[in-house]
Amino acid sequence: QAKPCEDNEEGTSLNAVLADLATVNNSRDRASKLFQWLIHPVPAKDFFRDTWEKKPLLIPRQNPDYYNGLFSTAEFDRILREDDVQYGVNLDVTSYTNGKRNTHNPPGRALPFSVWDFYSSGCSLRMLNPQAFSSRVWNFLSILQEQFGSMAGANVYLTPPGTQGFAPHYDDIEAFVVQLEGKKHWRVYNPRSLEDVLPVTSSPNFSQSEIGSPVLEVVLEAGDLLYFPRGFIHQGDCLPNSHSLHVTVSSFQRNSWGDLLAKLVPAALGVAMEEDVEYRQGLPLDYLTYMGVQNSDKEDPRREKFLSRMGGLMNKLAGYAPVDAAVDEKAKEFLHDCLPPALTPEEQASSVQGSSTRWGNGRPLNVGARINSKTRVQLIRAGCARLCSDGEVIQLYYTTDNSRVYHKEELKSFEIKTEYADAVEFLIHAYPKFVVVQSFPCDSAAEKIALAELLFEKGIIRTAEPL
Amino acid sequence: QAKPCEDNEEGTSLNAVLADLATVNNSRDRASKLFQWLIHPVPAKDFFRDTWEKKPLLIPRQNPDYYNGLFSTAEFDRILREDDVQYGVNLDVTSYTNGKRNTHNPPGRALPFSVWDFYSSGCSLRMLNPQAFSSRVWNFLSILQEQFGSMAGANVYLTPPGTQGFAPHYDDIEAFVVQLEGKKHWRVYNPRSLEDVLPVTSSPNFSQSEIGSPVLEVVLEAGDLLYFPRGFIHQGDCLPNSHSLHVTVSSFQRNSWGDLLAKLVPAALGVAMEEDVEYRQGLPLDYLTYMGVQNSDKEDPRREKFLSRMGGLMNKLAGYAPVDAAVDEKAKEFLHDCLPPALTPEEQASSVQGSSTRWGNGRPLNVGARINSKTRVQLIRAGCARLCSDGEVIQLYYTTDNSRVYHKEELKSFEIKTEYADAVEFLIHAYPKFVVVQSFPCDSAAEKIALAELLFEKGIIRTAEPL
Amino acid sequence: QAKPCEDNEEGTSLNAVLADLATVNNSRDRASKLFQWLIHPVPAKDFFRDTWEKKPLLIPRQNPDYYNGLFSTAEFDRILREDDVQYGVNLDVTSYTNGKRNTHNPPGRALPFSVWDFYSSGCSLRMLNPQAFSSRVWNFLSILQEQFGSMAGANVYLTPPGTQGFAPHYDDIEAFVVQLEGKKHWRVYNPRSLEDVLPVTSSPNFSQSEIGSPVLEVVLEAGDLLYFPRGFIHQGDCLPNSHSLHVTVSSFQRNSWGDLLAKLVPAALGVAMEEDVEYRQGLPLDYLTYMGVQNSDKEDPRREKFLSRMGGLMNKLAGYAPVDAAVDEKAKEFLHDCLPPALTPEEQASSVQGSSTRWGNGRPLNVGARINSKTRVQLIRAGCARLCSDGEVIQLYYTTDNSRVYHKEELKSFEIKTEYADAVEFLIHAYPKFVVVQSFPCDSAAEKIALAELLFEKGIIRTAEPL
Amino acid sequence: QAKPCEDNEEGTSLNAVLADLATVNNSRDRASKLFQWLIHPVPAKDFFRDTWEKKPLLIPRQNPDYYNGLFSTAEFDRILREDDVQYGVNLDVTSYTNGKRNTHNPPGRALPFSVWDFYSSGCSLRMLNPQAFSSRVWNFLSILQEQFGSMAGANVYLTPPGTQGFAPHYDDIEAFVVQLEGKKHWRVYNPRSLEDVLPVTSSPNFSQSEIGSPVLEVVLEAGDLLYFPRGFIHQGDCLPNSHSLHVTVSSFQRNSWGDLLAKLVPAALGVAMEEDVEYRQGLPLDYLTYMGVQNSDKEDPRREKFLSRMGGLMNKLAGYAPVDAAVDEKAKEFLHDCLPPALTPEEQASSVQGSSTRWGNGRPLNVGARINSKTRVQLIRAGCARLCSDGEVIQLYYTTDNSRVYHKEELKSFEIKTEYADAVEFLIHAYPKFVVVQSFPCDSAAEKIALAELLFEKGIIRTAEPL
Repeated sequence: QAKPCEDNEEGTSLNAVLADLATVNNSRDRASKLFQWLIHPVPAKDFFRDTWEKKPLLIPRQNPDYYNGLFSTAEFDRILREDDVQYGVNLDVTSYTNGKRNTHNPPGRALPFSVWDFYSSGCSLRMLNPQAFSSRVWNFLSILQEQFGSMAGANVYLTPPGTQGFAPHYDDIEAFVVQLEGKKHWRVYNPRSLEDVLPVTSSPNFSQSEIGSPVLEVVLEAGDLLYFPRGFIHQGDCLPNSHSLHVTVSSFQRNSWGDLLAKLVPAALGVAMEEDVEYRQGLPLDYLTYMGVQNSDKEDPRREKFLSRMGGLMNKLAGYAPVDAAVDEKAKEFLHDCLPPALTPEEQASSVQGSSTRWGNGRPLNVGARINSKTRVQLIRAGCARLCSDGEVIQLYYTTDNSRVYHKEELKSFEIKTEYADAVEFLIHAYPKFVVVQSFPCDSAAEKIALAELLFEKGIIRTAEPL
Repeated sequence: QAKPCEDNEEGTSLNAVLADLATVNNSRDRASKLFQWLIHPVPAKDFFRDTWEKKPLLIPRQNPDYYNGLFSTAEFDRILREDDVQYGVNLDVTSYTNGKRNTHNPPGRALPFSVWDFYSSGCSLRMLNPQAFSSRVWNFLSILQEQFGSMAGANVYLTPPGTQGFAPHYDDIEAFVVQLEGKKHWRVYNPRSLEDVLPVTSSPNFSQSEIGSPVLEVVLEAGDLLYFPRGFIHQGDCLPNSHSLHVTVSSFQRNSWGDLLAKLVPAALGVAMEEDVEYRQGLPLDYLTYMGVQNSDKEDPRREKFLSRMGGLMNKLAGYAPVDAAVDEKAKEFLHDCLPPALTPEEQASSVQGSSTRWGNGRPLNVGARINSKTRVQLIRAGCARLCSDGEVIQLYYTTDNSRVYHKEELKSFEIKTEYADAVEFLIHAYPKFVVVQSFPCDSAAEKIALAELLFEKGIIRTAEPL
Repeated sequence: QAKPCEDNEEGTSLNAVLADLATVNNSRDRASKLFQWLIHPVPAKDFFRDTWEKKPLLIPRQNPDYYNGLFSTAEFDRILREDDVQYGVNLDVTSYTNGKRNTHNPPGRALPFSVWDFYSSGCSLRMLNPQAFSSRVWNFLSILQEQFGSMAGANVYLTPPGTQGFAPHYDDIEAFVVQLEGKKHWRVYNPRSLEDVLPVTSSPNFSQSEIGSPVLEVVLEAGDLLYFPRGFIHQGDCLPNSHSLHVTVSSFQRNSWGDLLAKLVPAALGVAMEEDVEYRQGLPLDYLTYMGVQNSDKEDPRREKFLSRMGGLMNKLAGYAPVDAAVDEKAKEFLHDCLPPALTPEEQASSVQGSSTRWGNGRPLNVGARINSKTRVQLIRAGCARLCSDGEVIQLYYTTDNSRVYHKEELKSFEIKTEYADAVEFLIHAYPKFVVVQSFPCDSAAEKIALAELLFEKGIIRTAEPL
Repeated sequence: QAKPCEDNEEGTSLNAVLADLATVNNSRDRASKLFQWLIHPVPAKDFFRDTWEKKPLLIPRQNPDYYNGLFSTAEFDRILREDDVQYGVNLDVTSYTNGKRNTHNPPGRALPFSVWDFYSSGCSLRMLNPQAFSSRVWNFLSILQEQFGSMAGANVYLTPPGTQGFAPHYDDIEAFVVQLEGKKHWRVYNPRSLEDVLPVTSSPNFSQSEIGSPVLEVVLEAGDLLYFPRGFIHQGDCLPNSHSLHVTVSSFQRNSWGDLLAKLVPAALGVAMEEDVEYRQGLPLDYLTYMGVQNSDKEDPRREKFLSRMGGLMNKLAGYAPVDAAVDEKAKEFLHDCLPPALTPEEQASSVQGSSTRWGNGRPLNVGARINSKTRVQLIRAGCARLCSDGEVIQLYYTTDNSRVYHKEELKSFEIKTEYADAVEFLIHAYPKFVVVQSFPCDSAAEKIALAELLFEKGIIRTAEPL
């Protein structure tokens, strides 16, 4: 009975939104609803059509509490105190003074004693992976990543009044600047040339003279949102009377058509070499005498002929392109990048992580798989597992054993025996519906239960009712 | 007001002992008092004289609650539920059935659902580094390591009724088996030969026919302690009617005179080569014709002469041995092995970890070093830092940035400028006395305060009163 | 005044042919004339049109002396005696008996004492790089490599009467079997399937039952030639009354259009990513939900759309393909594979290798570069150097410092300053004409001479007259 | 009928000496005779007693032809022309002008054209391993290495008139400067301090002000010899009217008692740890509190006790020292360093390298091992093989497969089965006597012959008569 949140997220606090979302059965719906809340009141459909990857957007709200609960300076302080935050790894201390950008990280652990000392002397603080320390940020990003189909990351920035922490630059990601406390003066500039539009890598630091005039200049206040695409130069500085705390949510790093082609094109050539003898035929005996840079100005009919044949072979390549396999290569990178799911209490209770098996009265209680043919199961998240064909064998890649620390764990997978592949695919495609174990397309009841147990133990599925 | 705990630790619970120890100002005293409690009522002095490295010892107590609070099956279950315990890394699943020892670790995280399933089917569980998950075990070992001057480790073993988890074998460490719950039948056997006395490496698994008859056979009950030196073969199995939980505290792995000589002897040769030209003189032109295995049966007066000169050079070596430098090499390994100090609330409050600097009211509060000339300071632990000379420079090695996970961090150190070395040594030797900063043997007040701030920021010293 | 050798190479001995070729000024002409002699009387033009990469060809000659001078068993024996031939590196000892192929290489140097013992007991001998030991084979292949535009290699095979040394198999190179002594019974079989036509890698050993019936069966006698393309299965065995010695000249390993595309296609994508924003645009948010192997059976209009856009981008790729740069990448591999030029006495005398600078009468004689503006120079070989653009800088890659041992040296090159690039290109394109140094398109006479001296010292150019 | 060369080597040319030595059956005698010729007329016995490793020595001869035939500028030129001499690898171009030492090596091959150009402009030339290019130098050093029991190396130095090629410095080897052509002004200086006497490593370049006054200053003329031990600073420069060519023969790099101790001492500790429980006993619990650099000034009776026990253990070490095994470790390094034997024609003819097995008349001739029970055999050199025990197995290490290029080959060895070990030892100890195969202490005639064949094939033994 999810409430129709699209209608009423106006003024909805994050706590309330997340509580609502916990009642939504489909993680993809959760993702789109949370994203809609993030950019409210702009309709997501309009945003992706008109703004995304195209131009900056300011969403002012005059509601300083809108993003309350996502992160705070109090949480920042708590993390420094309780967690092992390391300078240079988890926290950067920076400054940008008189046109010069500096990093001031000492070695070792970042404790409040020294961190707040840096801050008091005018340094900015950037926490690099707040999702590893803040359960709320983890939950937030783990939902959003299903909206983007690409890793959702975050950095937190805390800036003292009257200072600037970073030089003007552009990034290689789509950026959502979520203002949490105080205010910040932002200037955003167009990409400097066509080549800087949607760039593949971040820029170096620019001097003020290199970047022209801003296309957007604004003071972002708590509750406001600022979006800009990769390639848009930006800089933010604090007004004299207020500190600023914001979190930048990012996505779409190396997630372009060209990045997919980088997987696809060599694979296509491999297929072509196997299947089409034209690709295996020898080059002309004399091609080195008229091709190559030193011959590029030659007028030689053989050049035309050579280029034409080369072009023909390139054009034929598309016909050999294993697009789905290349997408899976890309998908595997995404699965590796993914945050593990942050479970709701209900999900927790119906999955292996919250199983009632426990020690008590001097012996284990509630031991033993109690999944049976009647048990109804569902993937724990739409995107938590993916069936890929790695040459001969079928592997199931999954995210539930990932770490909240980026790539701390290897990409996890296990082999799916051929006789189980249909059942796993059935389960994936059935999402978000719960399906009863006996409906698995397996040969025997025993196999159905064995598969369900395996997936349950890996945390990939949950049951409709706690076991 | 520390109670004189040596007099009354009989029946003292661990909670009470640790509370008492928190009031003891000297960490070495804490260590010896805790060790005395561990082996009560045997006096430590007698133990180290008569038993340590010599023979097994049983301390029965008929007080099942004696070790309460160190660890429990409830804690085991909690850890599985809340922490990221990985099979094969943090937890082993084993069995020893019909003379065959097996390991059953699946990949991935060890959750109660599967762990208790293994246990219920008769497998033993060994948690490899409980100090990383249990603050109590961490505290316990971090105190004890100062008693041993060698890493204090621990494994937890949980065994189902009527089973045995491991084959007979001996280890390369001194072992204190602390029985926590249930009971276990133990058999301990003498080393099989002189070569197995105090061995350098652990043994393979033995069959029952290889080990003879036990020199000690006992049923260990909760509250009892069993000690045996490295090299003593041992095996433990559960009675049909009771599970067993024990923690084995270990120390003195590779901590022998020979291990120190392995540092010392090459260093001695290096010094001798530098200082004594006899070591740099050329070998006889013809020594290869009468020395070497193929000539070892030759009767040749040159052999005697050669062996005599070689012996003379070996004997002179002791005169060049840089013993203190070699001890420091060994000490550095120990500092790297050490658990970081587990601070008492009082220590916490007076050190960088509990500093009152914090975010509040929109800005950092209590910022800025407030150590001054009058501040009284003390090393946070007797053994938390050590001044070593690495060739040209003086380094201070320290344990306060170590991880509770073994060797997760590199050994930490920083250079001590020559003008600060005396002050650091002064501080180390002053322990456990607090000393006032102005008493540091430094040239200026500013230097004294700078040094104190540096050591305070690294967590190496605490102040007499919270700053 | 080279004799028109195409008209009269019938019956021409190798010695005479090579003497003739030494008077041919253009190394490419030398190459084609030598190749024509190799396959005489079949016209090279016909051969490359009808036979090359298509089908086996036997050229019987009834002239056992035709290939005399290329290699011999006497030369084989001399090499074993005088050179450091290592089993496993330079020489393989093999047998194929009762359908089983074995290798018998002991460790260490292959001396006649053991080599002829192996031979006498029925083993075949394969010398892997005769060009490193035989100046004649080196000369022969170094000329031929310019015909193929791809590395020309050689193996020598010596087989005892009545034996077979190798199992049926196919190779990944075009093979010219040059029968030198004795005779051998050959059977050649069609590729087993379309996939085995012009294969990229060699086959495993086949059993007789896997290969069907031969398409060519013949007894090759001294002076005869047998050609077969890669992918054609073959086996040869000796008749009971005669040993066999042949050399297999090979080329076109990994020299196909596809191998060039493997350089071109990633480069094309790199250019496209830089120049065309369409390649940098983000993938659809939801593509992972309908693309990939697990979705490949889905009927979803978005799949069509996605595939269509992907196809469009692939098709556009050809427009960004830097063909000349990719050819240069391939050319660089060839230059690295090349044998260094085997110079004629006349070439030697007019190049740095035969310079008259020498020690005499207690001091160096004829020292100092005497190249002047009037000196006429020529590349020492058409293909001995190549100008390539490596990103920012222009490099001249060259073969004259290569080793006769495959890849013993790194690929050699040096940077050509921009102001010299035109002159180097001028020199390369002028080939085979000698050009006078003052005609170099450089700014100053000093630069012209400096460039000529540099190229002369590297052995890349020679002078019209000995200096 | 070797002429008694010790009596008449006065005026004996190198050719004559080497011819004489070829008739000497024992390679150790050859070595001592050749060394005696090198330092004639100083008796070797006196030299090694009074001079070796002690002080410089000049042997003037007024016989410019004395060393003729060892090396020459003509040979230098020939090598540049015919061999692949690489700058930086085989040849260094150096200068020392105005107190500044420079190296001028270009990349690539050193041909006369550029080498003599460097020389003419005042650069010195150092050929680094003439033994790889000159058979005479190879032969010379391969004989001498048996005199030293340590690698004999050589560098050739050619210096233009009026120049100096190197700054003052000392080396880490015993040096014999053999003046071959022209003359050179040498200055030799005492080691600057006791620490520089017989040093382990070479010095950096010194300035003239650092080295004081020479203890020896002389003009070395062709035919003269100059010896100085490692640690003696030296510099040589050419007079204005003459070039200089000399070869420096070197030995005893890292061949000191201390270098052997570096093998012995860790091995001794290993044995002690295994055999003596005192070494395995634990360190005192509290040793870190009174030992170590930070405690070195403490007056603590425990320090004395600790040092005393440590000293006792160090002193006991000599009793566990496996001297012969350590000598073998050193010997193995020497065997790896050794030049392969340069065989005389007679040795060649009676060894595997000159075996009469050869190809002829269309088939191998003289094939098959013809060693029989009556064959008389001898090691080809006293020091060409060594029997060592590597833990469980016995290995025979040997030099006959070494390369003339330093360490181009791995150290060669093969396992000797236990039943052959006595026979190999018998053969080694019988040297220089020939022994008949049937006298081998093996179980059967077949084994005796098999062993002889194996050693013959490896080139380790030769026969009394050519097979």
